[in-house]
Amino acid sequence: MTDPAVRNPDFEAVVRGSFAQQGLMSHLGARIARVEPGHVEIEVPYRDELTQQQGFFHGGVTTAIADSACGYSALTLMAPGCEVLSVEFKINLLAAARGERLVARGRVVRSGRTISVCQGDVYAVARGQETHCATMVATMMRVDFPA
Amino acid sequence: MTDPAVRNPDFEAVVRGSFAQQGLMSHLGARIARVEPGHVEIEVPYRDELTQQQGFFHGGVTTAIADSACGYSALTLMAPGCEVLSVEFKINLLAAARGERLVARGRVVRSGRTISVCQGDVYAVARGQETHCATMVATMMRVDFPA
Amino acid sequence: MTDPAVRNPDFEAVVRGSFAQQGLMSHLGARIARVEPGHVEIEVPYRDELTQQQGFFHGGVTTAIADSACGYSALTLMAPGCEVLSVEFKINLLAAARGERLVARGRVVRSGRTISVCQGDVYAVARGQETHCATMVATMMRVDFPA
Amino acid sequence: MTDPAVRNPDFEAVVRGSFAQQGLMSHLGARIARVEPGHVEIEVPYRDELTQQQGFFHGGVTTAIADSACGYSALTLMAPGCEVLSVEFKINLLAAARGERLVARGRVVRSGRTISVCQGDVYAVARGQETHCATMVATMMRVDFPA
Repeated sequence: MTDPAVRNPDFEAVVRGSFAQQGLMSHLGARIARVEPGHVEIEVPYRDELTQQQGFFHGGVTTAIADSACGYSALTLMAPGCEVLSVEFKINLLAAARGERLVARGRVVRSGRTISVCQGDVYAVARGQETHCATMVATMMRVDFPA
Repeated sequence: MTDPAVRNPDFEAVVRGSFAQQGLMSHLGARIARVEPGHVEIEVPYRDELTQQQGFFHGGVTTAIADSACGYSALTLMAPGCEVLSVEFKINLLAAARGERLVARGRVVRSGRTISVCQGDVYAVARGQETHCATMVATMMRVDFPA
Repeated sequence: MTDPAVRNPDFEAVVRGSFAQQGLMSHLGARIARVEPGHVEIEVPYRDELTQQQGFFHGGVTTAIADSACGYSALTLMAPGCEVLSVEFKINLLAAARGERLVARGRVVRSGRTISVCQGDVYAVARGQETHCATMVATMMRVDFPA
Repeated sequence: MTDPAVRNPDFEAVVRGSFAQQGLMSHLGARIARVEPGHVEIEVPYRDELTQQQGFFHGGVTTAIADSACGYSALTLMAPGCEVLSVEFKINLLAAARGERLVARGRVVRSGRTISVCQGDVYAVARGQETHCATMVATMMRVDFPA
């Protein structure tokens, strides 16, 4: 709680609670690996159910965990009672997502009152070696919910 | 086969064969609804396994079927022996993806020698009514494979 | 003023007044060709000052008029006293922008309370023939100004 | 020339020569501030001719110099006789581009055989203080020209 940008001391519980409600994340076998102020990591181990036609991770998996990592990194900096919606994102697929695991690292580039801009980088881990396989820039919007 | 842009008379079989190898599409319960020259539709029925934290379709599902619909629309116009890789895509999420079914319609905006640009629009179908919930523009690259 | 989406009967004057204050548009020689509810066209004639290294229109010109056409198409549907900021945009350059004139056509895809999503298509006109040379999707945000 | 990624010892002359042919860059008053392997900086001083309706730098200027900085950063790593085309780019405008000068810093994220992916960050400099006002991710394509 020493980070001045943090407005909700329970940010980690909020992120983990929201993540647990995302049916897709558990269907993909994804889990949260790290939650810090302005930074969230999500990873997913390889399964045949996650592939494209060549047997590598499908771009849809890469994108889904990058989107969630970006959105939750924005949420770590928001006040209690806020939620985050993805307005849009763009992803460049840099290399084949080949390996035993994918890791998406999302971080906040700019945290505004309504709009936050986040960057998400995805790495494929094969025998402990990381390959940078995608980079995303995402626009997130704060939404207030009644308590 | 009267469409002059078609260079492979077996384009539909090629698309369906490749789709069948995508583990993720079957894991999501997605299926190809339509294959025409320069146009492919993919749909996915609602399941709890596909949701975000509010119980609507997750943006990752919307994106995965839009990406596949765009890539396969590009593939319909390619010569035999080609494959398609997603270079990048950008998606704007326009409305909550709420309904019993999502449909992604991909179409080729420009088919070049190396690069094709495609647009994908996703609709959420609730009680037969379509809501336009996302629009994607994607850059696809042709890759040649040895026969 | 029969269009139900229009909330400011003076939308055309608002758009033209704002455009006239954009130093860059006049520096590029751009002008507004059309203002309709949810639709704005901006065009710019060829000059050597607008080129990239091969003598065609620079992507920066294509982008600048597409961005303005998108933003002003969003503004046509806003209440009096609003302004529009570009949150982000993405543009695919489809063909060389070669010709005596560029035309950007912006239209609103979705007009929300805070966020509008617009599409802008740019055409290069050579001897009266239009070539589709770029397509943009832009996220615009409403900003309220005190009267 | 000790950088192993450099394939043309004259990369700086190539970049500066190409830049000098871009009519738009001189029309905007932009100049190259730095050329390193995989990294190019372009800056432009404030003029009324470069503004949007509130008197700040227009997003079109921000974008034009970011696009050029990205493209030329890719060109620094290419073999002699190559040129670079922008396939697409996406830019998020993070803050008002207010100041006496804009600086765009482009760098190569991934340099492939055909496709390079670059990131460009733009800073507005006001009284020596830099504000991060935009971030771009761009896809560049190598084009070979006959000698």
